Amino acid sequence: MSLTPNPRVLYAKVPGPGPLVAGEHLVYESTPTIDLDAPLNGGFLTKTLLLSPEPFMRERLRDPSIFTYSTPMVVGQPVVGFGLVQVLRSEKEGVKAGDYMYGFTPWEHYTVQPYVDARFDFAGANYPPYTFDMDTLVLQPVPDPQGTFRWVHFASVLGTPGLSAYVGLESVAPDMKAGQTIYVSSGASGVGSMVVQLCKNRGLRVIASASSDSKVEYIRSLGADVAFNYTTCCVAATLAEHGPLDYYWDNVCGKQLEAAIQNMALNGLIITCGAMSEYNLAPEECYGVKNLSLIFKRRLRIQGFIMSDALPELLPRFMAEVPALLAQGKIKSQEQLYVGLDKGIEAFLSLYDGSSKAKPVVVVDEAYACM
Amino acid sequence: MSLTPNPRVLYAKVPGPGPLVAGEHLVYESTPTIDLDAPLNGGFLTKTLLLSPEPFMRERLRDPSIFTYSTPMVVGQPVVGFGLVQVLRSEKEGVKAGDYMYGFTPWEHYTVQPYVDARFDFAGANYPPYTFDMDTLVLQPVPDPQGTFRWVHFASVLGTPGLSAYVGLESVAPDMKAGQTIYVSSGASGVGSMVVQLCKNRGLRVIASASSDSKVEYIRSLGADVAFNYTTCCVAATLAEHGPLDYYWDNVCGKQLEAAIQNMALNGLIITCGAMSEYNLAPEECYGVKNLSLIFKRRLRIQGFIMSDALPELLPRFMAEVPALLAQGKIKSQEQLYVGLDKGIEAFLSLYDGSSKAKPVVVVDEAYACM
Repeated sequence: MSLTPNPRVLYAKVPGPGPLVAGEHLVYESTPTIDLDAPLNGGFLTKTLLLSPEPFMRERLRDPSIFTYSTPMVVGQPVVGFGLVQVLRSEKEGVKAGDYMYGFTPWEHYTVQPYVDARFDFAGANYPPYTFDMDTLVLQPVPDPQGTFRWVHFASVLGTPGLSAYVGLESVAPDMKAGQTIYVSSGASGVGSMVVQLCKNRGLRVIASASSDSKVEYIRSLGADVAFNYTTCCVAATLAEHGPLDYYWDNVCGKQLEAAIQNMALNGLIITCGAMSEYNLAPEECYGVKNLSLIFKRRLRIQGFIMSDALPELLPRFMAEVPALLAQGKIKSQEQLYVGLDKGIEAFLSLYDGSSKAKPVVVVDEAYACM
Repeated sequence: MSLTPNPRVLYAKVPGPGPLVAGEHLVYESTPTIDLDAPLNGGFLTKTLLLSPEPFMRERLRDPSIFTYSTPMVVGQPVVGFGLVQVLRSEKEGVKAGDYMYGFTPWEHYTVQPYVDARFDFAGANYPPYTFDMDTLVLQPVPDPQGTFRWVHFASVLGTPGLSAYVGLESVAPDMKAGQTIYVSSGASGVGSMVVQLCKNRGLRVIASASSDSKVEYIRSLGADVAFNYTTCCVAATLAEHGPLDYYWDNVCGKQLEAAIQNMALNGLIITCGAMSEYNLAPEECYGVKNLSLIFKRRLRIQGFIMSDALPELLPRFMAEVPALLAQGKIKSQEQLYVGLDKGIEAFLSLYDGSSKAKPVVVVDEAYACM
């Protein structure tokens, strides 16, 4: 038996509200090892190629006695999230060495799948019925792009962020019409940048915002008609100038949601996809939205969704449509690469401290940075 | 020319936020007169029988430079709202003496229709496109019930409140299923009491609340499975005990909306119909709702509506269905009668100061109190 190094990002300590601390809540460990020839018990062995830090992961790092929509991660085990892996060995029917797969996987170099120790034991738990067992987002086969697009897109536009944008627009707002106006908050994020582009492709007038001037430039390069830095502009006044809004794509909740509601057109639709502004806050610290009476006054609809609900139905369409748009240059995707799993924590925290410049991707296997 | 007394309730002074003051903002005047033989200029003369004080009217009493969804009332003119009238004389085709009509009418004994002076001049105004010109809710013919139900129902279950409940349920929540759970705030109000009963008729489990123990008793008598006094119970805890909620019918906004959101089931639907808790408040004084991230986490839908939007389509079904349910005793309606227009202001203010015991109706023509 020979042991191979298997570095990982450990979920070391349950955080309270507030920013995560590297080295305390999340710890990079270089010393673990794995026997790559160990029995697979009917599963398969994967090598991690890319990992995708995503905002929703923050809420899974919590005291398991706090109920929310997602199951928590398991303290003392590696962080788990969306990633791209390659199969090294398999005892499972339909899965063979060399296959590429995308889905939930632990933040470590090698994993015997399905992962067991990092999986939250949901079955016997007394959780509310609306709880989503995130560990069911198991690995699915994905095609080798063979040079038509870059591998790293699987952790951005062709991964959860792109899928969230696509699924949200297709399932919640299929009737969008050219010439209508949408506002997209967090417009430079993985999800937001895809929403901006899909809406431009549909002929909409797109207003989008981000937290820095360079991100605003990026949004402009994606075709947004109006782009602004929400940290230096008054959101409500800017939307009043360029509105009213037929649609608002909400990635952040709180103050921006209030400003958007204030500027919605009659019969407007708000698609709520995330709450970036709140993941680090205790419930009582969240911003209180005061203008909800406008929902009936303007006959608004607010619709929440999570990507996985409509995925089985929409994934085939997404895979038929979006890689082609990428190849034709009709959709662009910008990633900020963090090469090496030892950069994983920095990449994850960049989502919250404003330091991310584009969708962060952790490149675990260096070869996939440039291909 | 002989003059007939024509008492009225005058909108005397534009209020700010806060409770309306009788004798200051609203003034009962007994001295105006009308010549009942005056020319009608192609219109028709009506006698007011019943008037329906309704929560939405508060917001129309405002500085016209404040934009909201409705046009304002005209200061120096009578209050305008829904009412039942009878035609005395007519020069208008299709309208004849003796006809009963329901719709917007000034709070006075006699009116030459269409009313002109009390109509807000909206045409030339620079109002936002979502503004609804309320004075377009003109009088429509209604049938003489001929003893099958009481006339006063036209100002409650067969008027705007009942119509709002019916239109909201039919247009926003047509897929309700027996056994599902709904929470109705302001359950003893005109709208709320109708929602409770229509939902019971559809086989739903109904939770409802009101502001006094006697109203809670009334809600129970309508068939609600759980009824509670929200001024003495914790709403969130009560809903947690009896939820989760598949539906919430929101008449009040603010704190109760927050408590309901906290207790919604996955894919739940919130129908927003009004904002009773806020009509007397300045925007910055309204309660801030902090848990809106649950909209995406539980994939909720929040849908606002106003009754008039779907009225043309649904009024015929309503008139075919609801009077029959009333006659069969499958729907009950309790009104608190204020006999005499001089009681009009007291009736209106009872909506806001908690003194209303049931849907207030101003009986202008005494004969219609008992028929």
